[in-house]
Amino acid sequence: MPELRNHTFDELAIGQQAESKRTVTMEDIRLFAAASGDYNPLHLDPAYAAGTRFGACIAHGMFSGGLISAVLAMHMPGPGTIYLGQSLSFRLPVKVGDTLTVHLTVANKQPRRRQVTLDCLVLNQDGKTVVTGTAEVIAPAERETITIATPALTG
Amino acid sequence: MPELRNHTFDELAIGQQAESKRTVTMEDIRLFAAASGDYNPLHLDPAYAAGTRFGACIAHGMFSGGLISAVLAMHMPGPGTIYLGQSLSFRLPVKVGDTLTVHLTVANKQPRRRQVTLDCLVLNQDGKTVVTGTAEVIAPAERETITIATPALTG
Repeated sequence: MPELRNHTFDELAIGQQAESKRTVTMEDIRLFAAASGDYNPLHLDPAYAAGTRFGACIAHGMFSGGLISAVLAMHMPGPGTIYLGQSLSFRLPVKVGDTLTVHLTVANKQPRRRQVTLDCLVLNQDGKTVVTGTAEVIAPAERETITIATPALTG
Repeated sequence: MPELRNHTFDELAIGQQAESKRTVTMEDIRLFAAASGDYNPLHLDPAYAAGTRFGACIAHGMFSGGLISAVLAMHMPGPGTIYLGQSLSFRLPVKVGDTLTVHLTVANKQPRRRQVTLDCLVLNQDGKTVVTGTAEVIAPAERETITIATPALTG
């Protein structure tokens, strides 16, 4: 099982970056539908989606929000991070088979509360901006390494 | 299979509300972990979570974001809504067994683009505020009724 080490407030530098890549599958969309309760056929029914302006099933907008939050929680700052807030601007639809890259950049640090602002950018495989946003977190004070397990789903 | 009807831009009134209730299970958290890729043990490993400030596994912050987006997509405005943006402020942790109620309120309407601003509030079973935020959407122009299916997961 993989191990992940966090980045403490003191270790983070303004301009520091992290990224993570994910190719979107229909199963990802089904998982997000089940987790969120959003079973809109635009996301799940290819025949319905073909008749919309999008022409094919698209991922939930908040799916990209989930990808951003995963990079915050797993990579930068990583384990021990407290999530305070997030803004998201949905710019382009995401289709099955698209490969998204989440880019996070440390934009500001406020030592009083160990608060860190991160610019968030999600690009697709064509380099086009899918989502932009800003995250506010409290970065961890202490170094920590965690072991990652991926539990089976029962559903 | 249930049917859902949307609310067009013209039908929506400032102050109009929608709500949806959900009791959070460990399976919901596993689904969100699989969808987002955030397998932080704070969400998934009770023994690890017991040693944190939270004392027990908590849901991903963006899980509540997913619940908000589901009410937008399924109920108000509902099918045909275009999601433009979302802000989220995470106020309190959500634990397994908590019952969350998402409240949406139409706050503003701009006819030029059919753009609607909705205040978003997530409360727990004690009436405490878990998440606040604001959603920006383009409301549908046309009435539409959709049939909701909940596909099985293969994972």
